Amino acid sequence: MQLSKLQVVSEKLRSNKIFEGFVVLVIIVSALVIGAKTYEIPGSTLSLIKVLDWLITLIFLAEISIRFLAEENKKRFFKSGWNIFDTLIVIVSLIPIEDSELALIGRLVRIFRVLRMVSIVPELRLLLNALIKALPQLGYVLLLMFIIFYIYAAIGATFFGAINPELWGDISISMLTLFRVMTFEDWTDVMYESMAVHPLSWIYYLSFIFLTAFAFLNMVIGIVVNVMEDEHAQERHQQELEDGTPTIDTLSAQVEELKQLVIQMNAKNAKPPQ
Amino acid sequence: MQLSKLQVVSEKLRSNKIFEGFVVLVIIVSALVIGAKTYEIPGSTLSLIKVLDWLITLIFLAEISIRFLAEENKKRFFKSGWNIFDTLIVIVSLIPIEDSELALIGRLVRIFRVLRMVSIVPELRLLLNALIKALPQLGYVLLLMFIIFYIYAAIGATFFGAINPELWGDISISMLTLFRVMTFEDWTDVMYESMAVHPLSWIYYLSFIFLTAFAFLNMVIGIVVNVMEDEHAQERHQQELEDGTPTIDTLSAQVEELKQLVIQMNAKNAKPPQ
Amino acid sequence: MQLSKLQVVSEKLRSNKIFEGFVVLVIIVSALVIGAKTYEIPGSTLSLIKVLDWLITLIFLAEISIRFLAEENKKRFFKSGWNIFDTLIVIVSLIPIEDSELALIGRLVRIFRVLRMVSIVPELRLLLNALIKALPQLGYVLLLMFIIFYIYAAIGATFFGAINPELWGDISISMLTLFRVMTFEDWTDVMYESMAVHPLSWIYYLSFIFLTAFAFLNMVIGIVVNVMEDEHAQERHQQELEDGTPTIDTLSAQVEELKQLVIQMNAKNAKPPQ
Amino acid sequence: MQLSKLQVVSEKLRSNKIFEGFVVLVIIVSALVIGAKTYEIPGSTLSLIKVLDWLITLIFLAEISIRFLAEENKKRFFKSGWNIFDTLIVIVSLIPIEDSELALIGRLVRIFRVLRMVSIVPELRLLLNALIKALPQLGYVLLLMFIIFYIYAAIGATFFGAINPELWGDISISMLTLFRVMTFEDWTDVMYESMAVHPLSWIYYLSFIFLTAFAFLNMVIGIVVNVMEDEHAQERHQQELEDGTPTIDTLSAQVEELKQLVIQMNAKNAKPPQ
Repeated sequence: MQLSKLQVVSEKLRSNKIFEGFVVLVIIVSALVIGAKTYEIPGSTLSLIKVLDWLITLIFLAEISIRFLAEENKKRFFKSGWNIFDTLIVIVSLIPIEDSELALIGRLVRIFRVLRMVSIVPELRLLLNALIKALPQLGYVLLLMFIIFYIYAAIGATFFGAINPELWGDISISMLTLFRVMTFEDWTDVMYESMAVHPLSWIYYLSFIFLTAFAFLNMVIGIVVNVMEDEHAQERHQQELEDGTPTIDTLSAQVEELKQLVIQMNAKNAKPPQ
Repeated sequence: MQLSKLQVVSEKLRSNKIFEGFVVLVIIVSALVIGAKTYEIPGSTLSLIKVLDWLITLIFLAEISIRFLAEENKKRFFKSGWNIFDTLIVIVSLIPIEDSELALIGRLVRIFRVLRMVSIVPELRLLLNALIKALPQLGYVLLLMFIIFYIYAAIGATFFGAINPELWGDISISMLTLFRVMTFEDWTDVMYESMAVHPLSWIYYLSFIFLTAFAFLNMVIGIVVNVMEDEHAQERHQQELEDGTPTIDTLSAQVEELKQLVIQMNAKNAKPPQ
Repeated sequence: MQLSKLQVVSEKLRSNKIFEGFVVLVIIVSALVIGAKTYEIPGSTLSLIKVLDWLITLIFLAEISIRFLAEENKKRFFKSGWNIFDTLIVIVSLIPIEDSELALIGRLVRIFRVLRMVSIVPELRLLLNALIKALPQLGYVLLLMFIIFYIYAAIGATFFGAINPELWGDISISMLTLFRVMTFEDWTDVMYESMAVHPLSWIYYLSFIFLTAFAFLNMVIGIVVNVMEDEHAQERHQQELEDGTPTIDTLSAQVEELKQLVIQMNAKNAKPPQ
Repeated sequence: MQLSKLQVVSEKLRSNKIFEGFVVLVIIVSALVIGAKTYEIPGSTLSLIKVLDWLITLIFLAEISIRFLAEENKKRFFKSGWNIFDTLIVIVSLIPIEDSELALIGRLVRIFRVLRMVSIVPELRLLLNALIKALPQLGYVLLLMFIIFYIYAAIGATFFGAINPELWGDISISMLTLFRVMTFEDWTDVMYESMAVHPLSWIYYLSFIFLTAFAFLNMVIGIVVNVMEDEHAQERHQQELEDGTPTIDTLSAQVEELKQLVIQMNAKNAKPPQ
C-alpha cells in the first residue's frame, strides 16, 4: 500500500511541468559541462565540473527512479527503447571516470547524455522516430547503391591499386575513395592521377558519378512521393470525417432517400384508381 | 486642421507612383555609392560621394517624415517592423561618419540602406515575410541538427583534439569543422589526418555525413510538403468560392430542394381522394 | 506567279523529312568540324576543314532561303526569334575568317552554329522555351538574392579588403568571392584567412551560407509548386473535356432536368381535380 | 518424356526458397572472394580462393542449367535480358584466368558476378528496371545539356587553350574540365587562371554554372512531376476500382434511374383521367 502511494506521488511529479522543465535544464547544464571540458580549464573549475558531473548523475538517477516508480506496469517500462537508453546512460555514468580502462566509455556516455534531450522533449522524439521509420523504405535502394560501390571499388582496386595504394590499396579503401568521389571532394585529383596511366579511366569516374547521382535522386524522389502520399491519404480521410460538408457518399444517400419517396408515391398513386 | 491637411497631402504623395519610383531610384543610387566606396577613388570623387551621401540621408529623412505624416494613426506607424527599421537606418545615418568611434556603425548602416529596397518594393517584402514565416516550422529540425552537431563536436574534441588543435581544439572550433565537413569542403583532408591516428575514425565522419544529410533531406521534404498543402488548401478554397461551377454542396442543396417538391406533391396527391 | 510556284516548291521541300534530316546531319558535321579545329591538325586536313566550312555555310544559306521562300507571309518570318537567330548566324558566317579584326566573331559564330540544332529539332526548341518561360517567375527571388549578395559584398570589402585584396579588393571581386563561398569551393580557406584577423567573422560566412541556401531552397520549391499547379490545372481541364465521364456539372444539369420533370408533373396533377 | 520430367524437377527446384537462398549466398561468397583478392594474401589462401572461384563458377553453371531446363519455352529463356547476362557471365567465367591475354576480361567478369545479385533478388531487379525506364524521359534534356557542354567546350578550347593546354587543350579535355566546373571541384582555380589573361572570363564560368544548374534543376523537376503523375493516375484508378464507395459515375446512374421512375409515374398519372 505504501508502494502504490509512492507510485501516485511519482506519477504526479512526472507529469509536473516544472519537474519536466527542471530535467531539461539539467540536460542543458550537462551539455554545457561536456562542452566546457573541451576547453583548457584551470584546476579550480575542473573540481567544480567534477562536482557538477556527480550532481547531474544523481539527478538523472533520481529522475529515472521516479519515472520507474510512476509506471504502473513495471514490465512496460523496459519495453520503451528510450527508457532503456536513459537507464543505461545513468548506470554507466556511475562508473568512476578515473579508472583508466573504462575512462573512455565514461566520457562517451557523458557526451551521449545530451541525447536525453531527445528522449525528454516529445517533439524531438517524434522527429527522430519519423527519421528512423523512413530508413527501411530506403533499404533496397541502399543495397543497390552498396552493390554499385562494391563493383566499382573492386574494379578500382584492380586497375588503380598499383598507381596509388593509399587510395586504391584494397576494396575497403577503394570504397572510401569512391565515397569521396561521390561527394565531389577533390575527385579530379584522383581522376587525373589514374588518367595519367589509363587515359580512358575518366569513363570509370563519370559513369560512377552518373550512376550514384541517379540512384540518389531516385531515392530522394521515392521518399518525397511516399511522404506526399501519406499526407494525401491522411488529408482525404480527415476531410471526410472532420467537417460536416456533404461528400459523394451523403449525396448518394440523399438521392436514394428521394428515390424511396418517389416509389412510395408511385405506389399510393397506383391505388386510388382502384 | 492644418495638420490634417498636411496628412492628406502626405498621403497623396506617398501613394504617388512617381514618388515611389523616385525613392527606389535614390535607394539604387545609395547602393551604387556604397559600391563605389569599395574602389580606390580620387579625392574629387570622394567629396562628390560625401555630398551624395548627405543628400541621400536627407531624402530618406524627408520620405520617412512624409510616410509618418501620411499615417492617420501615429501609433500604428511604429507597429510595422519595416517602419521601425527604416526610421532607425535614417537616424543612425545622421551620425557624422568622421567620428572614429562610431564610424564603423555609420558605415554598416549605410550598407544596410540597400535593404530599404525590400521595405519599399511590396513583392520583395512579401517574399522575405514568407521566408521568415517558414523558419519556425523548421525549429525542431534545427534543434535536432544542433544536438547532432554538439554530440559529434564533443566526441571530435575529445578524440582528435590532440591531433590537430586548430580543427578540434575545443567544442566551438569542432562545430565549425563539422559544418565544413557537412559542406564537403576538403573533408577528406580532415578525415585522413585523424585516420592516421585512429584508423576507424572514418565511421565518425561517414555516420555524421549520413545523419546530417538525412536530417537535412527530411527538413527540405518537410518544407515542400508544408508549402504544397498550403497551396492545395488555398486552391480548393478558391475554387469553391470563385467560379460559379456547382460543387457537391450546391448539388446537395439541389437534391434537397427536389425532395421538398416531391414531398409537397405527395401531400397534394394524398388530399384529392378525400 | 513564278514566285508563288517557288513558294509551293520551297514549302514542300521544307516539310520533307529527308530534307530536315539532311539539315540535322549538316549541323552535326558543322559541330564535328568545330571540335576538330580545337585539335592540332596537319595542313592537309586544315584545308579540307576550310572547304567543309564553306560548304556548310552555303548549305545553311540555301536552307534559310528555302525557309524564307516557303513562308507565305514574309513579315511573319522575321517575327520568330529562331529565324532571326538562324539568319544572323548565316550572314556572319559569310564574313571571311582570315580578317584578323573580325576573326574572333567569325569563330564564335561558327561555334554558335551548333545551337541551330535547337532551332531545328522541335522538342529541343520546346524545352528551351520552357526554360526561358520559367525564368521571369524567379525574377524577384533573383533580385532578393542579388541584394543579399550586394550587402554581404559591401561588408566583406569593408572589413576584409585589407586582408586579401585579391578576394575582397572591391565590391565586384567580393561578389565573385561570395559566389565561390556559396558553391562551397575552398570557402574555409577564405574564412580561416579572415578569422585570423577578425575571430568572429565565421558569423559572416555562416549567416551568408544559411541565407543563400535558404533563399535558393525557396526558389526551387517555388518552381516545383508552380510546375505542379500547372500540371494539375491542365490535368483537371483535360479530364473534364476529354473523356465523357460525368462531372459535377453534368450531374447538376441532370438533377435540374429531373426537377423540371417533377414540377411539370406537379402542374398536371394539380389540374385533374378541377 | 524424360526431358519433361527433368523440366518439372528443375522448376520445382527453381521455385524452392532454400535453393534461391543458397544462390544468393553463393553470390555473396563470390563478392567476398572478389574483395579478398584486392588484399595482399598469402599463397595458401590464394589457392583456396582459386578453388572457391571454380566452385562458384560450377554452381552458377548448374544454376543457369536448372533455370534453362525449368523453362518450358526454351526460346523465351533468351528473351529476358537478365538470363542472357547471367549466361554470358558464366560462360566467360569458364575461360581460364591464367591466360594473360584474356586475364583482364576474366577478372572483370568475376567482378560483374556481383551484379547477379540484382538478377536474382526481384526487388532489386524492379528498382533497376525503374531506373532504366526513367532514362529515356531525360533524353532531350541530356541532349540539350550536351549541346551546352559542346558549345562552352569549343569556346573554352578556343580562348583558354593557350593558357592551360592540360585543361583546355582540345574539345574533349575541355568538356571534362567543364564537368569538373559543374561539380564545383576547384572551379575557382580554373577561373582565376583564365581571368589572369581574360579578365572578363568570369562571365563564361558563371553563365555556364547557371545554365547547367538550371537545366539540371529542370530535369529533376521533370522526373518528380512524371513520377507524381504516374502515382496519382494509379491511385485514382485504384480508388475507383477497389473500394465500393460511390463515385460521380454511380451517382449519375442513380439520378438517371430516378428520372426514369418519375417519367414512368408521369405516364401512369397521365392515363387515369382517360
